[in-house]
Amino acid sequence: MRHLLNPLDFSVEEIDDLLALARDIEQNLPGYAHVCDGKKLATLFYEPSTRTRLSFEAAMLNLGGSVLGFSSANSSSAAKGESVADTIRMISCYADICAMRHPKEGAAFVAAQKAQIPVINAGDGGHQHPTQTLTDLMTIRSMKGRLDNLTVGFCGDLKFGRTVHSLINAMVRYPNVKFILISPPELRIPDNIRDDVLTANNVPFEEVGNLDDALGQLDILYMTRVQKERFFNEEDYIRLKDCYILDKKKMKLAKEDMYVLHPLPRVNEISVEVDDDPRAAYFKQAQYGVYVRMALIMRLLEVQKPC
Amino acid sequence: MRHLLNPLDFSVEEIDDLLALARDIEQNLPGYAHVCDGKKLATLFYEPSTRTRLSFEAAMLNLGGSVLGFSSANSSSAAKGESVADTIRMISCYADICAMRHPKEGAAFVAAQKAQIPVINAGDGGHQHPTQTLTDLMTIRSMKGRLDNLTVGFCGDLKFGRTVHSLINAMVRYPNVKFILISPPELRIPDNIRDDVLTANNVPFEEVGNLDDALGQLDILYMTRVQKERFFNEEDYIRLKDCYILDKKKMKLAKEDMYVLHPLPRVNEISVEVDDDPRAAYFKQAQYGVYVRMALIMRLLEVQKPC
Amino acid sequence: MRHLLNPLDFSVEEIDDLLALARDIEQNLPGYAHVCDGKKLATLFYEPSTRTRLSFEAAMLNLGGSVLGFSSANSSSAAKGESVADTIRMISCYADICAMRHPKEGAAFVAAQKAQIPVINAGDGGHQHPTQTLTDLMTIRSMKGRLDNLTVGFCGDLKFGRTVHSLINAMVRYPNVKFILISPPELRIPDNIRDDVLTANNVPFEEVGNLDDALGQLDILYMTRVQKERFFNEEDYIRLKDCYILDKKKMKLAKEDMYVLHPLPRVNEISVEVDDDPRAAYFKQAQYGVYVRMALIMRLLEVQKPC
Repeated sequence: MRHLLNPLDFSVEEIDDLLALARDIEQNLPGYAHVCDGKKLATLFYEPSTRTRLSFEAAMLNLGGSVLGFSSANSSSAAKGESVADTIRMISCYADICAMRHPKEGAAFVAAQKAQIPVINAGDGGHQHPTQTLTDLMTIRSMKGRLDNLTVGFCGDLKFGRTVHSLINAMVRYPNVKFILISPPELRIPDNIRDDVLTANNVPFEEVGNLDDALGQLDILYMTRVQKERFFNEEDYIRLKDCYILDKKKMKLAKEDMYVLHPLPRVNEISVEVDDDPRAAYFKQAQYGVYVRMALIMRLLEVQKPC
Repeated sequence: MRHLLNPLDFSVEEIDDLLALARDIEQNLPGYAHVCDGKKLATLFYEPSTRTRLSFEAAMLNLGGSVLGFSSANSSSAAKGESVADTIRMISCYADICAMRHPKEGAAFVAAQKAQIPVINAGDGGHQHPTQTLTDLMTIRSMKGRLDNLTVGFCGDLKFGRTVHSLINAMVRYPNVKFILISPPELRIPDNIRDDVLTANNVPFEEVGNLDDALGQLDILYMTRVQKERFFNEEDYIRLKDCYILDKKKMKLAKEDMYVLHPLPRVNEISVEVDDDPRAAYFKQAQYGVYVRMALIMRLLEVQKPC
Repeated sequence: MRHLLNPLDFSVEEIDDLLALARDIEQNLPGYAHVCDGKKLATLFYEPSTRTRLSFEAAMLNLGGSVLGFSSANSSSAAKGESVADTIRMISCYADICAMRHPKEGAAFVAAQKAQIPVINAGDGGHQHPTQTLTDLMTIRSMKGRLDNLTVGFCGDLKFGRTVHSLINAMVRYPNVKFILISPPELRIPDNIRDDVLTANNVPFEEVGNLDDALGQLDILYMTRVQKERFFNEEDYIRLKDCYILDKKKMKLAKEDMYVLHPLPRVNEISVEVDDDPRAAYFKQAQYGVYVRMALIMRLLEVQKPC
């Protein structure tokens, strides 16, 4: 039995296979309408995340399966002091697969050790969120036709942004990828990513403070939300959140085929005037997220593609 | 693509057609069990409303479709600062149609402008709640056999009661309808309804303070809840909420074929002793609400009636 | 139309029949995948209980039906002052059967009087929780092969533990059952159970304070959680909750075929080192709970076993 806990749990070949299945799903959605008939997905969200939860639910419903679960900790047995290990054993009796979001790092790992069903980590604190990474990879491959030979810019909160860390980890495995890391000094990429992932693998990267200067070189611009809940200090948040706002004027500095991604939700770091630009790919990401989760559920349940 | 945002979005002819479909659904429920197979309804409730949400969910399930969504704002991305416009773009990737309840006036209108799926306004603040109006119209037509040539009494909170305003707006389009507006002075119908809807259309109406005097003339009595959440002042609420209570004694003053409607939930404005009176139509309304929502979902999804 | 409000609503023969159906479901799960196609279960949880709610939902989904409802009171019409009696009349329009959890004793009984659909009491305060009792009975019969000729120990909070009271009430109906009641003096079994159920029926029982001494005699050990929410006093809770903890060392005193049950969630009253003991039946209980609820839904909906 396989789980998906960390974006690196799957090899490059497995990810290629998964993205190919997701692509086929995109092109032939009705063909997959019954491949999970009678299967149940449990969505265990100890921390609210509408976007991720509904994406999983839409994925399972699209496959003909059904869904049960909870959307916040206070309506769960956790409020009565139950451990994640016990909850997952119960859920193993109720569902065929589960997606778990938890505020504590490592919660999904603990769950997977006791689960009798595949566990998908749908986010554990600031740690991992592997289906976001799969979504990002599918979006890049769909927009650019490849995952190698790319210059990828990350902009905003590179310190706390786990989607950034995960995507860097995933993309260093492809040849000839270069990163430009755009952030204020306070929100720079953590040392362990810079040293252990980028430098150690001889991956070229630059750390810069100015979005305008970097824009012209990029094939992909990955914007991030400056999340209030990651700050201890209200003042720091207010000062930094507006530093790196992408607008129409800035988009003029970018290549014709540079695509903008964002894990969403955005607050104001991308001006709404950019939404109609054909290079804005962030709403398409939401759609790709459903297809890639459908592919993942099929793989983990070992359900075959229909003939 | 059509939305339903305002009760007047549909012409009289379209409403007739919708009510006819709802009637056919009522009489042949199993025939509609699969017309929405594979379709998904998103219920986006930024404000809790069990009754409305479950009515939509029952409607979609009766049609063979499935449901996803959220039942309060704190489990939605709104808590992270996402705009309604962004949320609806995401939801367009997840579902085929959506029903949105929001505390702010106009929220569903904003959503519809960005949505790639039909949006049903399931209540926006004190503003509109068009599926309640459709439910009321179906109930009146089912009980009385017609929507014209009626004397309709509204009783209770006519100031804040949006269901009252909407139903008046809808019914002035039918010939020979007369209204009797029964309320304490503080809760009288707003000027804009009285002047711009009733007087401007030459629709006969009376404003009275006494339910007993009006009862004998009515074909329909529409009772309303005096909603605590609409008041700024606890004392005003307590003084006014019990003013107009319908009981068995009052029902003796009414015609044999006067039907009592109420949008529910009620608190104490209709005594439970009235529940067994054959003229009590308020629980039937809940059933009609499911049928009319089924018809609406079919029309907006352009799903055909089964042969 | 039948409801299930109290564990004693079903006769011994009816329970035998239900457990036999549950057993057949366990052995032939796919055969039941469509017996409730098109049916809807409403889960009305005025008080959160993930375990019980998800067990009901899994049961209905396994039968091919679908589910709607709410998981806490603040997202229900109850917050607007609606009575249970009115809510159940509305729900009767939306669903074919309902499971209700409510903090007030007797709530499900009130609901059943007005319901036009079968009502299952999924817990009403400290009062009744009949599907837990059915689950316990199925577990005992599955592990031991019988419900008679057993020595059953109950350990922990015997005062507030409604599952204990219900299971005693259910098991005194079988011949030659003996009870050993293990608790601190403050949490002894209530007088009415001791006098009116045990003594009045000439059922042999002992009240003891020491788990170790009792263990060797037992065929079944039913552990209970000392629930914080049942205490008025934090100090009493802390002092008493750790009194009766089952661990590996204690398990050595028990028979080879003594099975341990627990209604779950547990906090620390069973050490996790016991989980791998083949006599630990508490996680199997969760699975049996789904099967027995499937059987119950079928019986109340008068759905036949597939040929």
